[in-house]
Amino acid sequence: MNVSVSQANLAHALSIVSHAVAAKSTLAILVNILITTEDGQLKLSATNLELGINYWIPAQIEEEGAVTVPAKLLIDLVNTLPDDKVQLKLDPATQTLSVRCLQIVTDIKGISAEEFPPMPVFDDSEAIAFDMNDLRKMIQQVAFAASSDDSRPVLQGVYLNVNGNEMAMAATDGYRIAVKNIVLKENFDQPISVIIPARTLMELVRITSENDKQVLVTLSSGKMQVIFHLQNVELASQIISGTYVDYKAIIPKSFQTTTVVSTASMLKACSQAAIIARESKNLTRLNIQGGENGAGKVHITAQSEETGFYENYIDANVDGPDIQIAFNVRFLKEVMEVIESPNVSIQTNTSMSPGLIVPLDDNQNYRYVIMPMHFG
Amino acid sequence: MNVSVSQANLAHALSIVSHAVAAKSTLAILVNILITTEDGQLKLSATNLELGINYWIPAQIEEEGAVTVPAKLLIDLVNTLPDDKVQLKLDPATQTLSVRCLQIVTDIKGISAEEFPPMPVFDDSEAIAFDMNDLRKMIQQVAFAASSDDSRPVLQGVYLNVNGNEMAMAATDGYRIAVKNIVLKENFDQPISVIIPARTLMELVRITSENDKQVLVTLSSGKMQVIFHLQNVELASQIISGTYVDYKAIIPKSFQTTTVVSTASMLKACSQAAIIARESKNLTRLNIQGGENGAGKVHITAQSEETGFYENYIDANVDGPDIQIAFNVRFLKEVMEVIESPNVSIQTNTSMSPGLIVPLDDNQNYRYVIMPMHFG
Repeated sequence: MNVSVSQANLAHALSIVSHAVAAKSTLAILVNILITTEDGQLKLSATNLELGINYWIPAQIEEEGAVTVPAKLLIDLVNTLPDDKVQLKLDPATQTLSVRCLQIVTDIKGISAEEFPPMPVFDDSEAIAFDMNDLRKMIQQVAFAASSDDSRPVLQGVYLNVNGNEMAMAATDGYRIAVKNIVLKENFDQPISVIIPARTLMELVRITSENDKQVLVTLSSGKMQVIFHLQNVELASQIISGTYVDYKAIIPKSFQTTTVVSTASMLKACSQAAIIARESKNLTRLNIQGGENGAGKVHITAQSEETGFYENYIDANVDGPDIQIAFNVRFLKEVMEVIESPNVSIQTNTSMSPGLIVPLDDNQNYRYVIMPMHFG
Repeated sequence: MNVSVSQANLAHALSIVSHAVAAKSTLAILVNILITTEDGQLKLSATNLELGINYWIPAQIEEEGAVTVPAKLLIDLVNTLPDDKVQLKLDPATQTLSVRCLQIVTDIKGISAEEFPPMPVFDDSEAIAFDMNDLRKMIQQVAFAASSDDSRPVLQGVYLNVNGNEMAMAATDGYRIAVKNIVLKENFDQPISVIIPARTLMELVRITSENDKQVLVTLSSGKMQVIFHLQNVELASQIISGTYVDYKAIIPKSFQTTTVVSTASMLKACSQAAIIARESKNLTRLNIQGGENGAGKVHITAQSEETGFYENYIDANVDGPDIQIAFNVRFLKEVMEVIESPNVSIQTNTSMSPGLIVPLDDNQNYRYVIMPMHFG
């Protein structure tokens, strides 16, 4: 291999693929980045076996080739190089990659590209096109509700379903469920139903920007992996096998009390209550009280033997009987962070049954179910 | 206690005193902040026994008093409160501090102020006034060279000496020495000679800004502590007992080769060499070669069995015989980071004797001695 690329392009590409480099691994090669010439470009690849990223940058290719080198070493080096042309030249006999920028030369000992795990190949004949901004918003509103508990892999995933022109995304950790539905511009003949690790979807959000308008999605043959293909970058993720929980059955259909509050005020109060509640399993009480012409209050309290007591009142529009209900304040806070509409509706039945939180402007088709915490 | 303060003032004060809160401690009270009414102001105090900070903010005092509350809890809470008036009201019977801002009330369980370790009292009759910007620059150029090794407490300190109108500051970890001398505007009758923990001097830099023009310094009775007194804040530090190393004797007086390079180029090259050298005890070779009319080069190399090889050339003005010398590249990099003059002079004798690094513009009276690393 003998190629030249711009330092700025190389540094940016490395910052993206670094998201897929294994932190540490029993497989030494996974802390390396694979560098390959391909179709007149330079391809950088990393994988931690759950998530893989390919990134292509323009290159002037003198000689084709491929090698893997330690990711951290290459990233640290390229970040200190001047913004000029960087030449990458491989000595195949020693697998040493010489990185030259002006008079600065660094020879990095690499490992043969053949030892790098193969990345799934993207097949655009089977691809489905999604609006990337729609997809990004769905992931941001849903993926955080997935579990981080290794013992139930299915709950660490986000359920993605496409049926006709409808797309649904859902995640749950057993204590709350986030669901988002959108209508697609196209109609798809083949229904799709997959469970994708929440972590890798969050990486997709991280490595894309608002400039990424469209994403092409395919499943690998055997449906073991899903590939998200963008302009210069490709993200491949393991699919989680198993049957997803029947979340639709859990979402309550009717409610006795509907309480509308300002999303920002509720978020602020949750942040404050969480400071006291963290010593008492995050338990926070909402005492919802109606008033004349619907002008009511939510009295929010948190209490801990060790640290003290918190209380606050938020103006609310209450329709239905007064109710006292306790929630995990972290679950309440996290949903307030992703709801974009200025007001939010909290729908409840009794202090023992799940509550539903929806943006007041419900064009968004977003629903968040949260189990109550019982208190004595 | 019953006082009112502004949320912004309180949040800022807490961000400053938090630097002295013990991370975790066998003494539970040290993770608390002491809150005291004093001379019409509210005083916030924290100490980890090595370092203590007092900060005063304007307050409207209804009732005098004092209490300690958990630092993290109070800081997290105040940071989420709106920018409005905050009322702090103590229930002396339960030592519970009620923090009220608008309709938001948080009762925090505290510990009696009497259990808080006493802070040394600042006595302005004995105080010496220093220019804070001079002192800050001295600390930044010297303190990083102190040792972080617990086994030799004296080397963890910075030596501070005032004699007549001369002030010197020195630090060493046994492998390099940083020394800064300045001339004071005043003449002091009483010589001062103390060793102050480098860590607490770095905190002094962190909690002050360029708006702090002057600092008053006193030693506590018994000379166990030094107190730095600024406008609204006071920092008290333990003094390290012991005799400081005779660093003046170690600084070489004459040199065979003087090499002048750009500080920025040298810093960049050190950062790059460090990436390869970190696998080989930071050893980096300088091959200094003269040229016609003094126009020479420094050839910088680093090598590691594991990771590879780095080389770079920097333009240099070389006066004297060519020399090869190896240094710990971290020590070289750290001094380049604090030297402000655009060019730096590296003065050497042989590859076995210490080098001296000085800013080319030597009005700064700064000297940095660095031991060579022997290579095979």
